[in-house]
Amino acid sequence: MKEEIKLKSYPHKHLLGIEGLLPDSINFLLDLSQKYVIYLKDNGKKLNILKNKTCINLFFENSTRTRTSFDLAGKKLGADMLNISVASSSIKKGETLIDTAMTLNAMQPDLIVVRHHDAGAVKLLSEKVNCGVINAGDGPHEHPTQALLDALTILSRKKTISGLKIAICGDIMHSRVARSNIHLLNTLGAEVRVIGPATLIPKDIESLGVKVFYKMKDGLKDVDIIIMLRLQLERMSGSFVPSIREYFRFYGLNRDKLKYAQSDALILHPGPMNRGVEIDSELADDLDRSAIFEQVRMGVAVRMACLKALVKCN
Amino acid sequence: MKEEIKLKSYPHKHLLGIEGLLPDSINFLLDLSQKYVIYLKDNGKKLNILKNKTCINLFFENSTRTRTSFDLAGKKLGADMLNISVASSSIKKGETLIDTAMTLNAMQPDLIVVRHHDAGAVKLLSEKVNCGVINAGDGPHEHPTQALLDALTILSRKKTISGLKIAICGDIMHSRVARSNIHLLNTLGAEVRVIGPATLIPKDIESLGVKVFYKMKDGLKDVDIIIMLRLQLERMSGSFVPSIREYFRFYGLNRDKLKYAQSDALILHPGPMNRGVEIDSELADDLDRSAIFEQVRMGVAVRMACLKALVKCN
Amino acid sequence: MKEEIKLKSYPHKHLLGIEGLLPDSINFLLDLSQKYVIYLKDNGKKLNILKNKTCINLFFENSTRTRTSFDLAGKKLGADMLNISVASSSIKKGETLIDTAMTLNAMQPDLIVVRHHDAGAVKLLSEKVNCGVINAGDGPHEHPTQALLDALTILSRKKTISGLKIAICGDIMHSRVARSNIHLLNTLGAEVRVIGPATLIPKDIESLGVKVFYKMKDGLKDVDIIIMLRLQLERMSGSFVPSIREYFRFYGLNRDKLKYAQSDALILHPGPMNRGVEIDSELADDLDRSAIFEQVRMGVAVRMACLKALVKCN
Repeated sequence: MKEEIKLKSYPHKHLLGIEGLLPDSINFLLDLSQKYVIYLKDNGKKLNILKNKTCINLFFENSTRTRTSFDLAGKKLGADMLNISVASSSIKKGETLIDTAMTLNAMQPDLIVVRHHDAGAVKLLSEKVNCGVINAGDGPHEHPTQALLDALTILSRKKTISGLKIAICGDIMHSRVARSNIHLLNTLGAEVRVIGPATLIPKDIESLGVKVFYKMKDGLKDVDIIIMLRLQLERMSGSFVPSIREYFRFYGLNRDKLKYAQSDALILHPGPMNRGVEIDSELADDLDRSAIFEQVRMGVAVRMACLKALVKCN
Repeated sequence: MKEEIKLKSYPHKHLLGIEGLLPDSINFLLDLSQKYVIYLKDNGKKLNILKNKTCINLFFENSTRTRTSFDLAGKKLGADMLNISVASSSIKKGETLIDTAMTLNAMQPDLIVVRHHDAGAVKLLSEKVNCGVINAGDGPHEHPTQALLDALTILSRKKTISGLKIAICGDIMHSRVARSNIHLLNTLGAEVRVIGPATLIPKDIESLGVKVFYKMKDGLKDVDIIIMLRLQLERMSGSFVPSIREYFRFYGLNRDKLKYAQSDALILHPGPMNRGVEIDSELADDLDRSAIFEQVRMGVAVRMACLKALVKCN
Repeated sequence: MKEEIKLKSYPHKHLLGIEGLLPDSINFLLDLSQKYVIYLKDNGKKLNILKNKTCINLFFENSTRTRTSFDLAGKKLGADMLNISVASSSIKKGETLIDTAMTLNAMQPDLIVVRHHDAGAVKLLSEKVNCGVINAGDGPHEHPTQALLDALTILSRKKTISGLKIAICGDIMHSRVARSNIHLLNTLGAEVRVIGPATLIPKDIESLGVKVFYKMKDGLKDVDIIIMLRLQLERMSGSFVPSIREYFRFYGLNRDKLKYAQSDALILHPGPMNRGVEIDSELADDLDRSAIFEQVRMGVAVRMACLKALVKCN
């Protein structure tokens, strides 16, 4: 992607967030991901790259797409995947997160993928283990592989990220996807905007280098990429948002609001979607405008790249 | 099994039900299943037939035997198996079934096995994915691999299905097993009867080509095969059935009622059994009369055959 | 470990408990475990020893460490591992344990690992299947692989078990870990003591060949090994224990109480720990005194040995 000298390996032990990563590190992971996109397109045979390696999927929150995506990515690379979900976890017996970390560490895995409902929990865990750790989402903090797969999707359609105008719309406050995307897209030179109701935008968000808009009409003007966020429906009643109908009217993406953006603007959504809440159902299914399921495909490639980059192969 | 020219491959993309399958298609799957019965009997080594293939087990209902049977079948063939259960599904986040289908499809699996509590849900899902789909039970609609394993069990003991008198007994109305069996056994030339209380037999069932009996004494007369159905115990109180004791008295299979059938009549049950409700416990354990655990063994072979038949191998 | 002639194979079909095992059988499993400790230390590649074998992990109780440990051990040996947890079990449909056993048996696995909340349930299950069964914990009865990994940990630090003074502290009454350890350590020639409040020590425990102490000061005197047991917090209110604070004061292990033991006494705990209840948090993390996470590492080696020993390889 760039003419400068590229990294030969990912220079960190963990992938806990996008914040703080240099452009070279991000580009290293994206370049490797693109190789796996081609591999997957060629209906590639199972690889042996991680054949003797063990990866633990440790999920403290329910997840279909992310857990399955990592599981599939690991198996494609030949790794042994161990899945641990919170329902069957000793956490219910009162074990601390640190003890869980040290217990799993004693089993000598080669990598641990963690999703946790608390911001910072994955970092805490990473400090107690010898192997690499990938953050698969920690509370409202970061979800780095989601930002990487979003970037990969944008690259596949727009060839570059630098210079693009990108709007992230919806519940910015509670979104780890927003935070990771802001860091990544800023680092790679995009102009990032956030759009949403004042109740769902943190006060200090401008310090992350984004412009804040409260109206879709203003924020979507001339953007190349629209990243719609999932609205947690449990926030629909109460102080954040008055009602689903009103939210959709002001912030739900439909053909009318899309007109404010560039004529070839691309729509992303991390899924699972609430059709008719944050996005119009018919628009979500328009493959020319929406890359929602392409994101899922890119996600497998990104997780393969991250697993490959973080597992130490002798 | 027949002298006519046999199919060289299964002629459909999916296996959504038995209804509408031609005898050749059913026989193709049964022939292939019999090869795997022999393979399993020889304590066969793991095969590489599906080595580079990924199969998703997507279960919206709890299941031990069916999910484990598919999981084992896939692993014996060398496939990578991804298990997704409803508890960890995004469905709980409000995702539609179609979005789940399209999300999993974007991960490019080679096959999806689905169990769902709603009739028709598996067909709906199959229309949104590129790969083959096997229905592992959709509400009260169909459960095709169960009918195939029942047929395989009957064939192993009786050598043929054509011309046999077969009674399906119990809760016909809510049973996907009954429906799939009626289609399969009729297609292969058996004489199929259903027996049960009027409250548990659908009014239009005779249009499927079965004779209806309300008394075990009448329905079991001269039958070669008795397929007992599981009674959902939550239906025991209320309008369907007066009480467990009364149900067992009139419709539970025991040695006395068995005398109405042929002297070598074989008993099948899809499991899990309610001992003392639909079948006498001692009779269930009589290996000469009951093929209940042989059915489980046949089930692994049938699932191997179905996976092999539906996954496209280059 | 001994100069006598060693066994060439494990002489039993199952591993249901330590009670009744001869020293040779225990030593056979420990010797084999030590080979796998070395294998794991060398960061060993995946083995093919159980390549064509299928092992079922059947857990009727939640578990992270034990289930994951068996899962990992099996995968390291090349086996196909099928995980069945109670949440997705037909037990919820009212199937009996025996029918579950016979159903899984019909799938012809090579080994079944079972955890169940009732004492004796695993033995009952083992009588209904053709393959070997490993008890991964049955109610308050036995947990033989835990006792083996405790012994392996002790051996790695003390080189022998014979002649050691070993105290097991806490809730003896409800502990399968205590029971298995008492049998194993007695069989290999240790002097075993139990310490705890009278409400948590069974009346007939001395018949197992242990000395009973009600005060840590008396029981810990001169011991080489201290095995702390997990206190089930649901027993903290009620007739067994007055309060967490009082329990910790009298029976929680801290530096003060540790002084009663030998100066090089080693601390074990089966995990998950209740820090500040049965053990002081800082002491638990002292790697010179506490072998708690070393036990986990030994656990993988022990499970590899048990799987290898019980699966019949042609």
